[in-house]
Amino acid sequence: MTEKKQLAQNAITTMMRKDYFSQWLKLEIVHCGPGQCICRMKVRKEMLNGFGILHGGVTYALADSCFAFASNTHGRLSVALKATMSYAKAVHRGEILTAEATEVKKGHRTGIYHVFVRNEEGETIAVFDGTVYRTDRMVLNQTDDGV
Amino acid sequence: MTEKKQLAQNAITTMMRKDYFSQWLKLEIVHCGPGQCICRMKVRKEMLNGFGILHGGVTYALADSCFAFASNTHGRLSVALKATMSYAKAVHRGEILTAEATEVKKGHRTGIYHVFVRNEEGETIAVFDGTVYRTDRMVLNQTDDGV
Amino acid sequence: MTEKKQLAQNAITTMMRKDYFSQWLKLEIVHCGPGQCICRMKVRKEMLNGFGILHGGVTYALADSCFAFASNTHGRLSVALKATMSYAKAVHRGEILTAEATEVKKGHRTGIYHVFVRNEEGETIAVFDGTVYRTDRMVLNQTDDGV
Amino acid sequence: MTEKKQLAQNAITTMMRKDYFSQWLKLEIVHCGPGQCICRMKVRKEMLNGFGILHGGVTYALADSCFAFASNTHGRLSVALKATMSYAKAVHRGEILTAEATEVKKGHRTGIYHVFVRNEEGETIAVFDGTVYRTDRMVLNQTDDGV
Repeated sequence: MTEKKQLAQNAITTMMRKDYFSQWLKLEIVHCGPGQCICRMKVRKEMLNGFGILHGGVTYALADSCFAFASNTHGRLSVALKATMSYAKAVHRGEILTAEATEVKKGHRTGIYHVFVRNEEGETIAVFDGTVYRTDRMVLNQTDDGV
Repeated sequence: MTEKKQLAQNAITTMMRKDYFSQWLKLEIVHCGPGQCICRMKVRKEMLNGFGILHGGVTYALADSCFAFASNTHGRLSVALKATMSYAKAVHRGEILTAEATEVKKGHRTGIYHVFVRNEEGETIAVFDGTVYRTDRMVLNQTDDGV
Repeated sequence: MTEKKQLAQNAITTMMRKDYFSQWLKLEIVHCGPGQCICRMKVRKEMLNGFGILHGGVTYALADSCFAFASNTHGRLSVALKATMSYAKAVHRGEILTAEATEVKKGHRTGIYHVFVRNEEGETIAVFDGTVYRTDRMVLNQTDDGV
Repeated sequence: MTEKKQLAQNAITTMMRKDYFSQWLKLEIVHCGPGQCICRMKVRKEMLNGFGILHGGVTYALADSCFAFASNTHGRLSVALKATMSYAKAVHRGEILTAEATEVKKGHRTGIYHVFVRNEEGETIAVFDGTVYRTDRMVLNQTDDGV
């Protein structure tokens, strides 16, 4: 494994250890690398909204975790400034969703990421576009005390 | 109580009954009216991310539920098309957040809503801007079978 | 040429004829097809902002025209509801920018499009994410009287 | 006049001097102050799109200039990272639009601004939400050489 891929894995493992909400989502890391992450999640009853479909906040949270992991893979602690979610298709209980984050820009101070959320048929469920601020701190030193 | 305010309350009560994710958030409706909603939520350990602060997906979900309630108060079943979240301040365990949704536009087919999320000191934590598509169906007839 | 590609070209030609602002931009259509469009533009002095770089509103307008063309290629008159622009890199006078729009979703009533704006080196300058409402009217019948 | 209001006016005057695109828009500054700006503009033929209404890129540009002015009133040179535009109503030739920017957050490194665009009847035409990165440079020193 390359050093950069190792760094990416260490950052995500460190973040995931205390990421209680991603644990509640039962989010699974399928792949990671520099600027990239793929996550998977199964839709459970407690994730539904009042119309019997997946709550938009949960779809967003899956994409947001994937975005946070991808943006922190370089080791620099990065925090979300702003994100946009576009919904393409309703999702039902029992479906398995996959989120895939790619890096559009890695600048000195900011980064831009796209996340596609797809169902098992490969249909796009939602698209997410997020911007982070890249701090001077390192992921590996910051998780005990919070940001 | 006016007829319009009664309609707003009935729509939200109907949605909330089966909104299992808003129930998990322990989201409380503080106020509602035509095109408006105020919700409150306490930040619990299982809502935190790997940096020990509130997961951005949970902040979004609070705003998104408030937006969904506000946009459905007129009785027409409305679904989210797209939303944007801007983060202003980190939030910690134990804090109580209040989301307030107001109607920017109510058109024939679409609606635009702003949500401010504030902490107990009244500081803005996050701002949310969402657009819905207003279907021809009514909220009160649709919740048994899903959308 | 296929019938669908012909329909796309006719829609864009019809729109472009009276699109005085895209004409001011000297926007050139490089390619179009169903759900797709590629446009090109050269940065002129009158497009700059007070810091001597391309005004963000002009970058947006290039992406927005490309998005409008792509979303109307199916012949159904489509209007923008909401769009998000993320800026990746400053642009200077004399640079040639290319915008490429792709269709993320084409639904019954709404559509989602991504636009990447790149410079001559192929670097991403900005990314745009837009949602349209698809009306029942046809592009070819509507341009004389406005919408 | 207070010192802060004077600083705001100087920043905007400095920016406007070489803002050739805002000059093309014939954008007029109605009011400014720390974190605030109100601008006005008349819709001309060359601002229209192919459907005979105001091009969405021009509406955005009006809001974007107003946002840029408001975010630079504190004297720290600030650059746009990301912005979202929601369209509420079509605009026709001859209408006079007013954009009003307010500060939602002024942080150490980033700022969040809302802009409402209204017509002469006070109806909301569009709403804009933008985030800036606040550099260490000062507005008054930077406009000769660009950023």
